[in-house]
Amino acid sequence: MTVYKDYDNYLTEHLDASIAELSALCAIPSVAAQNTGLDEGAALVGEMLAARGFEVEILPTGGSPVVYAERKGKSDKTLLFYNHYDVQPAEPLELWDSPPWEATLRDGKLYARGVSDDKGHLTSRLFAIDAILEADGELPCNVKFLVEGEEEIGSVHLPEFIAANTEKLAADVCVWEFGGVDHREAPMQHLGLRGICYVELSVETASTDVHSGLGGSIFPNAAWRLVWALNTLKGEDERIRIPGYYDNVAPPTERDIELIAALPEVADEYKQRYGVDHFLKGTTGGTELQIQQVFEPTCTICGLTSGYQGPGSKTVLPAKASAKVDFRLVPNQTIEEVLTKLRAHLDAEGFEDIQIEFMGGGPAGRTDPDDPFVQLVVDAATEVYGMPMQIDPMVGGSGPNAAFLQYLKLPIVSAGVGYPGAGAHAPNENMRLDLYVKGAQHIVRILKEYGE
Amino acid sequence: MTVYKDYDNYLTEHLDASIAELSALCAIPSVAAQNTGLDEGAALVGEMLAARGFEVEILPTGGSPVVYAERKGKSDKTLLFYNHYDVQPAEPLELWDSPPWEATLRDGKLYARGVSDDKGHLTSRLFAIDAILEADGELPCNVKFLVEGEEEIGSVHLPEFIAANTEKLAADVCVWEFGGVDHREAPMQHLGLRGICYVELSVETASTDVHSGLGGSIFPNAAWRLVWALNTLKGEDERIRIPGYYDNVAPPTERDIELIAALPEVADEYKQRYGVDHFLKGTTGGTELQIQQVFEPTCTICGLTSGYQGPGSKTVLPAKASAKVDFRLVPNQTIEEVLTKLRAHLDAEGFEDIQIEFMGGGPAGRTDPDDPFVQLVVDAATEVYGMPMQIDPMVGGSGPNAAFLQYLKLPIVSAGVGYPGAGAHAPNENMRLDLYVKGAQHIVRILKEYGE
Repeated sequence: MTVYKDYDNYLTEHLDASIAELSALCAIPSVAAQNTGLDEGAALVGEMLAARGFEVEILPTGGSPVVYAERKGKSDKTLLFYNHYDVQPAEPLELWDSPPWEATLRDGKLYARGVSDDKGHLTSRLFAIDAILEADGELPCNVKFLVEGEEEIGSVHLPEFIAANTEKLAADVCVWEFGGVDHREAPMQHLGLRGICYVELSVETASTDVHSGLGGSIFPNAAWRLVWALNTLKGEDERIRIPGYYDNVAPPTERDIELIAALPEVADEYKQRYGVDHFLKGTTGGTELQIQQVFEPTCTICGLTSGYQGPGSKTVLPAKASAKVDFRLVPNQTIEEVLTKLRAHLDAEGFEDIQIEFMGGGPAGRTDPDDPFVQLVVDAATEVYGMPMQIDPMVGGSGPNAAFLQYLKLPIVSAGVGYPGAGAHAPNENMRLDLYVKGAQHIVRILKEYGE
Repeated sequence: MTVYKDYDNYLTEHLDASIAELSALCAIPSVAAQNTGLDEGAALVGEMLAARGFEVEILPTGGSPVVYAERKGKSDKTLLFYNHYDVQPAEPLELWDSPPWEATLRDGKLYARGVSDDKGHLTSRLFAIDAILEADGELPCNVKFLVEGEEEIGSVHLPEFIAANTEKLAADVCVWEFGGVDHREAPMQHLGLRGICYVELSVETASTDVHSGLGGSIFPNAAWRLVWALNTLKGEDERIRIPGYYDNVAPPTERDIELIAALPEVADEYKQRYGVDHFLKGTTGGTELQIQQVFEPTCTICGLTSGYQGPGSKTVLPAKASAKVDFRLVPNQTIEEVLTKLRAHLDAEGFEDIQIEFMGGGPAGRTDPDDPFVQLVVDAATEVYGMPMQIDPMVGGSGPNAAFLQYLKLPIVSAGVGYPGAGAHAPNENMRLDLYVKGAQHIVRILKEYGE
């Protein structure tokens, strides 16, 4: 069994240099939604990988470029890291206590946009590689990096890129872009992601808004059409009313339920953090709440817009109305199925006038919690975090993991530097330095235990 | 029978002076919604009335001041003119072909914000008075003016002002702020206005928006709550579902139906002008459409707002949602009744969480189409317009006429300078000079025939 003292010492002693490298990366406002700093971000990531002896390629995707890098190692196994160099917009700027594009250290935390999501995860992995190269002079296995630049806008071009580069990207295991501890400081293994099908529903009933006194009794109203159409999608019982919607839904396995039952209670934390006073379907908490949270398909109205929305009153009959709706998909549901059934349902209910625009998405993706690589990663965490890693078999969010699973056919694990207070996507995003070191220590162990 | 040749000649010969006076009034941006130019507008109206020998008072209301004026006449009958000096905002400015606050003459039309609604109506009445004073040296009856400054924001303070000043405002008959010809150039007598009860419905389900991947399956969603609540208000059959909502609705009388049946067809014009391809409840046109248009209570969604409304997708579960809703009221419905029944209905349907904010309104108001004053005004139009005036017993819009009817107990007629292309509330608002003279000629006849 490997003794990690030298590696851990390296990480402690060279922390400042790695933080300086991370800070330089955070200085680039690589915001995909605003199309800024993307080429610059990709170039710097490429330089950082090349400095570790990786062969680097900056590859076009149709959107932001992908940084691809590989370095041979001692064994012929291959581990693929997935990260992204794009970040969320920094706005609203006035809510930041220090400038979002100047990484600032306060109370053991580094503050900057993207410092946690996902630049800190990326540099902590490079930091771990530094420690291994310093001690061993070589990597324990082949290592590849796929660092994309569109994660924050839905990885628009990534599935196609992966499908077109399966040989280049071929690997045995994958470490996902995020990971970290929960509110108890317990390391968490998040294994699956729900899919998503995001649509905009819109309707137009006239060529212009009309005075409501003139048209209220006789003209079709786009806002009413939208309300009635939406009402047919989901009832107050939270059951999605689209015929056949649940046909392919895979329920959680006994193993899923067992793993979820071992997770800490979330009900009180949610109520406090988000100011909700109850949960849907009468669920009050416990395992039931957490199964419902991730194993049920959703139909969420993300936005509604129609007519006059300013202060006071305006007596207008709106000609247009639209809604943004996301369907979170559980295993075995497909985008195509959702879109087809949605269109058929609206037509059958008399809403041929409601247009459906697909805004992006992909299916759910899962890794078997009993995959040996999962167990290896879980075991490797114990020494670092001083407590066992817990397996969360599925999270409610979405990401491009399904494309990795489909085209590269490998288990995907999470391991990283995050914590619940990191403020990803929010002002004052930050990363704890203690968790940065731990994250790198964990990556060292994963590489060494897996590669050798 | 009076011969009007001298009066009519005066109006033709002095048109330039009256247009100059109107242009000066249009130069004041008296926009109630933007709280600009209101005191200045009231002052100029007061000066214009004083110049005709009226006793003028500028009276506070809690909002924009009311200009009140009176001048004694030959008989002891009293005629009250209702007008307003406030106008709609001029925005969007880029759509104007000439500056909105500089009255500009093109092709026999004067263009300016408020030139038709309602400053042109007001000065055409002063112009008519000039003609009578020039010829007769006195007015045929007592004349009062009530010129308010909040008509375009719902006459917020007017009903209270009228209730508090019934003695001062006492009159036998009233000429309303608007009037004119339809698309056939036929003079129209619009007699009644629907009431309105404007509310904002809102709901808040959490203290902050939540990532839809986290909360979609377990957190209440404000947008869904709003959709479901709205859906209980009105169904696709257009029937308002609030219990007892139709209890006090007065149907049109046989006389109403007879008058409406004599009106020209509107179906094709509406389809062309507004780009609608059908009318509600399967109605295709004719008398049925026009009765439905004004004698049915409405529940119109004027606006919807919730969550993310920008381009692309954002996976957010909205904490707040709101809708602007106007209920047009037909005779015998009251504001209090609507608000009480709406609250009771939402509560009974399980929507105690939906807040109702009353944004303003008032009941419907009607004048008997067979009132002798209506007949006098109709007859007086024939000579001016070369064709008989048609009586439209009710229009779909709303205004403060109910307060006049309730507190002053007098018949209210319309007479004025408008036409369908006037663009009231729109860019390039305009007034036809030929109709300005005709409107003044009509007012001369109304005053003379009524007063003597």
